[in-house]
Amino acid sequence: MSQAPVPAAWVALAHEMADTARAIVLRHYRAGLHVEMKSDASPVTAADREVETAVRGLIHDRLPDHGVIGEEHGAERADAEHVWVIDPIDGTKAFILGIPVFGILVALTRRGAPILGVIDQPVTGERWVGGVGWPTELGGRRVHVRECASIGAAALCSTSTEMFTAEEGARFERLRADASVTRFGTDCYGYGVLATGLCDLVVESDLALHDYLAPAAVVEAAGGICTDWEGRPLTIGLGAHRVLAAGDRRLHDYARRVLSGA
Amino acid sequence: MSQAPVPAAWVALAHEMADTARAIVLRHYRAGLHVEMKSDASPVTAADREVETAVRGLIHDRLPDHGVIGEEHGAERADAEHVWVIDPIDGTKAFILGIPVFGILVALTRRGAPILGVIDQPVTGERWVGGVGWPTELGGRRVHVRECASIGAAALCSTSTEMFTAEEGARFERLRADASVTRFGTDCYGYGVLATGLCDLVVESDLALHDYLAPAAVVEAAGGICTDWEGRPLTIGLGAHRVLAAGDRRLHDYARRVLSGA
Repeated sequence: MSQAPVPAAWVALAHEMADTARAIVLRHYRAGLHVEMKSDASPVTAADREVETAVRGLIHDRLPDHGVIGEEHGAERADAEHVWVIDPIDGTKAFILGIPVFGILVALTRRGAPILGVIDQPVTGERWVGGVGWPTELGGRRVHVRECASIGAAALCSTSTEMFTAEEGARFERLRADASVTRFGTDCYGYGVLATGLCDLVVESDLALHDYLAPAAVVEAAGGICTDWEGRPLTIGLGAHRVLAAGDRRLHDYARRVLSGA
Repeated sequence: MSQAPVPAAWVALAHEMADTARAIVLRHYRAGLHVEMKSDASPVTAADREVETAVRGLIHDRLPDHGVIGEEHGAERADAEHVWVIDPIDGTKAFILGIPVFGILVALTRRGAPILGVIDQPVTGERWVGGVGWPTELGGRRVHVRECASIGAAALCSTSTEMFTAEEGARFERLRADASVTRFGTDCYGYGVLATGLCDLVVESDLALHDYLAPAAVVEAAGGICTDWEGRPLTIGLGAHRVLAAGDRRLHDYARRVLSGA
């Protein structure tokens, strides 16, 4: 991460974005029964659009020279030094099924690199915030990754093996087979518990910018490492889709070797 | 399920058990950092034992002729007409990793068949209660399964494919490949959202009595079907370990045929 601290006013604005998004998302949670994945009429799409519109309004009013990238409405001023990247509902399937581990993700990037991240959990009311100059907090309390040197002692999180290609799945399986515990269905929650020292490794694929930039900032500001499977820092420019987060650098090194096929 | 309604006093006692268990479990949640799975010193084991002791005390005081089966302290009066089956923490991995979808399960059986079930979610404060004469409620509000005639329209939940043998996994995969959405990492929450009409199918294996008797009562009292993979009702005597729950009988029939290899 680049080194100038994020101004406090921008952190406050990130909280305001998350507050705004949370109110909208909760209004749509369990609001429809038989819903389609991302059809135009689904509560997911409706919530996504409402959140993006509201958050874009906040950025436009307060920081008009900042850019914004969202899933529904595309990019605005994407070449600005500072660009916000928003995911109104990370964990669409969990949201649709009424399972409370989906989250709202807000990231701020500087020249493409994440410098602030928010992982907000609307149902439980939890919020992780961390970035450059802002050690990660959960609900205002400092949290930190834990040490874990070896895969045999590691707790591993991943949303689903459905996200992996056959080759990726085989590499993931080498980690899973040796890990102490593996937990699926985690979405952004996995990065939150890693930043809190409750799990050691998150391995995912088939992700997009808005899925991983906020978690990357939260994990790094909690003392962890979050890169692609080759160990490269996650930036807008890299355009990665495979993510490896670890609390301990030794475990990250090991997992990177396994996942990159080295 | 056998037909005489569960007395209101027993339902009230089930709530009291869940209240008692919830307070104990929340005290241990995220209390330790590097914890082992079910080692003697783990918060899971400590919470399990405390809950079982407290709940056994309640049963002994109020309904001394009822039996009780728990994971930690074994069976007492297991030959009684009415036997309670308790799981203080369903979703041990979620609990250890600090992910709020684990639950407390309380079942009451009559001659081995579940007649009342409680699925309690300590972190979100949600509680499903249903049984004979007690249509399933979530937080005091009636809930019901939804219709879903075909696998192509179905949302499927399962905790992890790690629970399946190779042959079971192959059969599960036939369902997953055709389902509209599959969500992993659900534990008892999957049965709760099925009873609420938010998902259509839960398929699991490698379960024990205390994992499925309460969910079975909740699902059936919400209008759903919960059996083993061969379609047999789940009872203490059956000793099943493979569970199939569906909201719609047509989908249950289809899934049973696939899973039983018929």
